[in-house]
Formats: sequence, structure tokens, C-alpha cells
Amino acid sequence: MDSYLIQVNGHGDHAPVLDVHLKNTGNTISPGKVKGRKPRWAVRASEMSKKTFNPVRAIVDSMKVEPNPKKAMISLSLGDPTVFGNLPTNDEVTRAMKEALDSGQYNGYAPSVGYQSCREAVAAYYTCPEAPLKAQDVILTSGCSQAIELALAVLANPGQNILVPRPGFSLYKTLALSMGIEVKLYNLLPEKAWEIDLEHLESLVDEKTACLIVNNPSNPCGSVFSKSHLQEILAVASRQCVPILADEIYGDMVFADCKYEPIATLSTNVPILSCGGLAKRWLVPGWRMGWILIHDRRDIFGNEIRDGLIRLSQRILGPCTIVQGALEHILHRTPPEFYHNTLSILKSNADLCYAALSAIPGLHPVRPAGAMYLMVEIEMEHFPEFENDVEFTERLISEQSVFCLPATCFEYPNFFRVVITVPEEMILEACSRIQEFCEMHYQGAEGAQDLECDK
Amino acid sequence: MDSYLIQVNGHGDHAPVLDVHLKNTGNTISPGKVKGRKPRWAVRASEMSKKTFNPVRAIVDSMKVEPNPKKAMISLSLGDPTVFGNLPTNDEVTRAMKEALDSGQYNGYAPSVGYQSCREAVAAYYTCPEAPLKAQDVILTSGCSQAIELALAVLANPGQNILVPRPGFSLYKTLALSMGIEVKLYNLLPEKAWEIDLEHLESLVDEKTACLIVNNPSNPCGSVFSKSHLQEILAVASRQCVPILADEIYGDMVFADCKYEPIATLSTNVPILSCGGLAKRWLVPGWRMGWILIHDRRDIFGNEIRDGLIRLSQRILGPCTIVQGALEHILHRTPPEFYHNTLSILKSNADLCYAALSAIPGLHPVRPAGAMYLMVEIEMEHFPEFENDVEFTERLISEQSVFCLPATCFEYPNFFRVVITVPEEMILEACSRIQEFCEMHYQGAEGAQDLECDK
Ligand SMILES: Cc1ncc(COP(=O)(O)O)c(C=O)c1O
Ligand SMILES: Cc1ncc(COP(=O)(O)O)c(C=O)c1O
Repeated sequence: MDSYLIQVNGHGDHAPVLDVHLKNTGNTISPGKVKGRKPRWAVRASEMSKKTFNPVRAIVDSMKVEPNPKKAMISLSLGDPTVFGNLPTNDEVTRAMKEALDSGQYNGYAPSVGYQSCREAVAAYYTCPEAPLKAQDVILTSGCSQAIELALAVLANPGQNILVPRPGFSLYKTLALSMGIEVKLYNLLPEKAWEIDLEHLESLVDEKTACLIVNNPSNPCGSVFSKSHLQEILAVASRQCVPILADEIYGDMVFADCKYEPIATLSTNVPILSCGGLAKRWLVPGWRMGWILIHDRRDIFGNEIRDGLIRLSQRILGPCTIVQGALEHILHRTPPEFYHNTLSILKSNADLCYAALSAIPGLHPVRPAGAMYLMVEIEMEHFPEFENDVEFTERLISEQSVFCLPATCFEYPNFFRVVITVPEEMILEACSRIQEFCEMHYQGAEGAQDLECDK
Repeated sequence: MDSYLIQVNGHGDHAPVLDVHLKNTGNTISPGKVKGRKPRWAVRASEMSKKTFNPVRAIVDSMKVEPNPKKAMISLSLGDPTVFGNLPTNDEVTRAMKEALDSGQYNGYAPSVGYQSCREAVAAYYTCPEAPLKAQDVILTSGCSQAIELALAVLANPGQNILVPRPGFSLYKTLALSMGIEVKLYNLLPEKAWEIDLEHLESLVDEKTACLIVNNPSNPCGSVFSKSHLQEILAVASRQCVPILADEIYGDMVFADCKYEPIATLSTNVPILSCGGLAKRWLVPGWRMGWILIHDRRDIFGNEIRDGLIRLSQRILGPCTIVQGALEHILHRTPPEFYHNTLSILKSNADLCYAALSAIPGLHPVRPAGAMYLMVEIEMEHFPEFENDVEFTERLISEQSVFCLPATCFEYPNFFRVVITVPEEMILEACSRIQEFCEMHYQGAEGAQDLECDK
């Protein structure tokens, strides 16, 4: 976590203005235009760079708090499954990379949208009769983050708006605001396993709505939408004629008792850009391999959106070619046991964590069905010492050295998010410390009654 | 080359508007707002995606021309040194990558500006007493292209302008226009080995000038600025208080008889963002490893620009972590002979090519001193059959199956660019075909006189 701490504080507001004297006046160039000013240095960061703002960083960086020196720190905060070494990627994945290196064939520039053979491999992997894909429907990107960036950049103009889940992954808002795109947050309902409040969603659509972001399975909720719920979402998009940006980076990462449906397989008309990548399922987020799958069976995006995506991809030229060279083998050779194993670890951690936290007075975990997270409601009435989730989680660090992200990071106060990719012992230890912490601070009697709705 | 051909033609202008009927009306949600419209699909690509325009692609894609089927195609058009296999990267580079893979330490997310240890490695490699660098002065990016994108994005607002060399690498303009930044082209002088026309440069500066892009060594010119010329450029920047974006991706790639000076080593006051990467010198452009070196010894950029760069880097999270993990070893273990060998091949090709083309009536090559290119003037007066460099190079393809980029791609008509990374035999064969072509089309007597200035 430490290496993620980025200092954006300091004296950034007042860039020094220096008066700098002329150097190297050997030649006698006279400016072609009289400027009517004596130039001075006044370099300012652009508006866009100021509008590019990561709320997680801002909140975390402002949590000025030291862990309890008597307890080893346990961080349940980072959506990086590789941190503790308990979830290594598969050997076939590494082997595919080495073969790509040894071949010497993947050192040069690839086309900006990715090698044709890799686009074919991704298309072949994800195609299905309900949502067929060809190579030209696939654009490779530098991580799912760039897939989302390109998708937003092609769909929305400054002044338009996009519909974003609350709670939701913060990058959507970060990217949108930096591009001058407005964000409208639609509610997810914890009491309905984080399904979308469809009425609220639909009420937000207006003439300026450029797209609807659907994140399934969800970060931070760990929820997985049912087929019928996805159909309801598609009905809204269809009725309102709003294209969908589906963030499916946790696609297929669902626990055994539940089924993952790519949203595009359930629609015959709504145009969908589905964003995904290797980061989570193959446990290599640092490799920055992502993709956009273009689903447009009614030709509503048409060439216009496709060409726009191609043009945008030429700005920085997509993902590392070695990973591209390995991609086909990664998709085909990784044994099914690898995925199953990952999911059974996640499921087991989720169950343990859910059971442990459910037993703690004042906390209400919501059972996850996939991805790598679990959200926990804090009954703030029972913790009058703390003003909000940020204070609650701050104190959890300083007293118990357990770090969970306050869900204010996801625009959802009074919850915190637990990452369930950490080793079992750590989950258990963390839960028992959270229990100790809550027992210490819980105030029973007073506010209890008015909270007794069933969750 | 084929894989680079991107179709941006077709019926992109008229996205079909379909009337799509309501699906899945199982539930009875009524829109929260009455819209006063019946929604219809009308998805349009954003303005930004339309403004993102790669002139090389546009020109090349519109060259509807088939090579001569009797002659094998020789492409001297792509700035990718890996295409022909004659310039493989060094074994140490590949080995460093495998070690990074095997360590299992580089699969997770790195900080968005790169691992601290890699930033240190780059800083240590490029630091020098005249231009000291520390880890915090280095930001790792997805290729030099992203370095340039971030540098422009932090320095310039829409409505401001940047100063860009003519002829010059087309990405500057592509990025700037897509961001709403104006481009002012300053002239390079072929008769002065492509030095900058300093008077012209300075005449372009105005209150809205956000930065000056200096590309040294140059694509497409293959030129290398002398110390004194760089000092003159710095004097303009200093006098006009314009920060410099130095594109030094070909840094150190200069032939033995000439010296490369990083521009930042010659200034004590002008704030400079120097962009570089592994692409060219280490011959792995596909790996997308680039960097920004922040030189700001008078604290003119200050924290404002640094923080802006950090925030912008969080959008898509920088380069592949395996390449990051290999970086220190790549920088330290690559044997000096590797660099020397590359340069001696380039120099030898440059000499051969220059000599052969100099002997051709109607052509005027400009001798390169570094990088991987050579520019050739076409005395259009002697080729009245062809309207311009695009037509000249088109016909060179259809008659001789030799493909050189028309310098219109670099805003510099009546020249073409030759890439000198191809194998010697190909250069020689290409030159002899170019000779045959020119002899066929050259018209001597008439226009000759008025051209006889000394070049
Ligand atoms: C919902 C969601 N989308 C996208 C991403 C970004 O994925 P990548 O690392 O491939 O850019 C993440 C990463 O945590 C995520 O949680
Ligand atoms: C002058 C110049 N700058 C930048 C780049 C881009 O480098 P990269 O491939 O690292 O993005 C190139 C590539 O040809 C170039 O010629």
C-alpha cells in the first residue's frame, strides 16, 4: 500500500513566478512580433489535469493516521489480488509470456487496436450465438481502464452526462469529470443484493445522456446480477435509447451457486461496449491488458463509433506486445482448475468473512456472489463516537491496524469495503479485530429500535 | 505494413437511426421524468474522437495503389526497426524480462507513475551534474507516445497553442488537435541540416503559447542539433518564458562523428519535460515503455505540474509491470557493443543510401546524423508528371514496388522520408529502383536553371 501513497498536497497552489534573465545572447534574433509584455514564467497546470481527480486517493491520502504499533497492519483495502502471494497466476500464463519473448516476433509495433491474431483470439473466446463476435469487434487496450477511457471518449461529448452506479468504481467519475462529462449517480439497493433501483435509473435519463455504465460483477459490492435483472436494465436502455458501457472486468468471477451472464448475450438491440481484460480473472493486473468488445447487432453504433475507437486507439497504441503475443495461449491453455481454484478461495473467504462480520453488533455485511469484495454497513447510530465511515475506518487503523476502504470512496457513506483476496488467516484475524473494535465502541440501547428493519 | 492499414473510410458519416421497440416490459416502471420526446437511437461519435486524426494514416490509406506485381515490395516507410529481423534487441533485454516474469514480483498493480525502484533506475541512468534527476523526477508511461500525451495534457489548455517542428512527427498535432490545442508550425531548414529557423520560431510565440516541442534527434529528418544550436533554442525559450517538451526518444542514437546533448543539460532555468523510452534505442517499440523526465531547477513547474502529471497518470496506470520489473537490468546489463552495433549499421545504411540517392538527378537527400531516417527533396520541376510528393511516392509503389512516406505526412511537401533500419541489400535494391524510376520520369532541360542554388 505504501507505494500507492501519492503526495498531491504541498504548495501546489502557488507556482513560483520567477524573473529569469536572458541567456546565450550570442545571436541577435529579434522577436517577430512585439508582444507588449515582458515575458515572465507563469506555467500553470491545465484545467484538465486539475479536474482529473481520484477520490480514493484524495480520501485515503487525507486519512492522517498511524496503525497501532502493537499490531501488525492488515490491509483489506486494495483491489490487487497479487499483493499477498496467495493467489499467483497460473504457470501457463507465465509460460505463454516466455514463448512470446523467445519467438522474437512481438517486439515491434502492433496495430494500434492490437494484432489481428489477438483480436481473433479474444473474439473466439467470448463469442457465442446470442452475442457473436469477430476480430473487428475487439479493440485491445492498455488495461480495462483504457478500455473505459476510450469507450467514454468515443460516446460522450463535454456537457453530456453518463449514468454511473452508486456505490461504484471511482474511475468512471474520474475519467468523466476530466473530460467535462457530467456524472449522474443511480442507486444500487443493498437490501436487494445491490440490484439497480430501476426507477431511479430511468428517472435520470435525459436528452444529454450519452451512456449507461453497468458494472457486473460489481466493485465494490461483489454482487452479480441475475438474468432477469439484466433484462430489466436492458429494457430501460432500450426504451430510453441509451447505449451501455458494460464494465465486465470481473466477468466469470462468480461463485458456484450463481451464474454470470454477459449483458450483451441478453439483448438483440441495445448497442453495448463491453470492457474487460486479464487483470482480475488471470490475476495479472499490472500487465495492463484490456479490451473493448463491440456489440452492435442493429448497427446503431455503426462505423462512426468503430472508426472513432480506432482513431482514439492511435493516441498511445494499446497494450504491450509481449502480452498480446501471449494472449491466445493465456486464453486457451490456462487450465479450468485454475479459475475454479481462485473462485473457491474467494468463496470460502467471502463465507468466512460474511459469517464473522454478521455476528458483530452494529455491522451489516451484504453477502457477495462474485468479484473480490464485500460491503459492510455500519449502523452509525450505534457508533456515536464516529461521524462517518471515514472516521470509523480511520480509528480501525489506529486501534486495530486493520485498513478497510470507507465506502465514501465509492460515493456510499456509512459502509466500508472489505477485499477478500487476502489469505484466510488474515481475514479471520482482521474480522476478530473488527469485532473487538466494534464491541469497544458499540452503544446499544438508544438508537437501536428504529433500525430494526430486516436486512 | 499490412496490419497497419486501418479502414477509416466507409459509411461512417451517417449512423443509421433505428426505431427500436420496447422489450421485456414485464415490470411497470414509469420514467421519472416526462421527456416530451419519443426516444430514438442516435448514437454519434464524440467531437474528440472526430478531431483525433492521424495524418499519416489518412494519407497512406488514401493512396489507393497496388505495387508492381513483378517486383517484390520494399517498404521503407515504417519507423519500426524490428520489421525485418536484422535489428533484434539484445539477449540481456529478453533475459531481464524473463527474470521479471519468474520472480512473480511484477504481476500486481504498480503505482500509477511506476515502481519507485524503476523510477530510481531511470533517474540514475540519465542523471548528470548539469541536469540532476531523482526518482521523483521520473514518471513511467505507456510508451513515449503517452509521455507526450501527458506532457501536453498537463501544460496546455484548449485554446492555447504549442510550437511544433515542420517537418515533424505527426503525433504532436494529432494529440494537440484532439485536445483543442492549437498547433503553430515552426520551420526547420534543410539547407542548415534541419536546424530550427529561430527567428520564425520566436515570431510564433504569443501569450497563449503553452510549450515548445523540440525533437532531437529528429524524426523524420535524422538530424542532430549541435550544442550551440540547442543553446540558441534555449535562449528563445528563456527569453519568451516558454517551457520545453523535449522529445528525445532517439536520444543517444547519433552517429560516431557527432555528439548527442540532452537539451536539459544545457539549461539552468528553462523548465523541461523530456520524453523518452525503450522503443528505439533498445529496439522494442511494441513493449510500450516510456518516461517523462522532469527538469525544473528553478522550480517553475513547481508542484503544480508534478501533481498534475501524477493525477493524469492515474487514468490508465502506466506501462506493463513486467517491462518495469526488467527495466533496471535492461538499462544496466545491455552491453555497450549492442548500442554501437546498432549505430554502425544505421550509419552504414545512411551513408550508402545518401550516396546512392545523391547521384540521382532530381533528388536531393539531406545527410542524417542520427535516428533512423533520411529526408530526400524531390525537385518537382524535374518531374512535371507528378503533382506532388504523394503522387511521386504513389507511382514509385505502382512502378517499382518501393514504398517511402511522402513528407506531406510531416507537413513538408516535395520531400519523402526513407527509413534506414532495413537490411543493406534492401536499401541498395530500393535505391537502384528509385534511380530507375527517376531516370524514367526526369525532365532535364527546362526547369533546371532556376533550381541551381547550392544545397
Ligand atoms: C470495476 C473495475 N473496472 C475496471 C478496473 C480497471 O481494470 P484494469 O486494471 O484492467 O485497468 C477495475 C480495477 O480495479 C475495477 O474494479
Ligand atoms: C519522434 C518520435 N517521438 C515519439 C515516438 C513514439 O514512441 P513510442 O513508440 O515509445 O510511443 C516516435 C515513434 O516513432 C517518434 O518517432
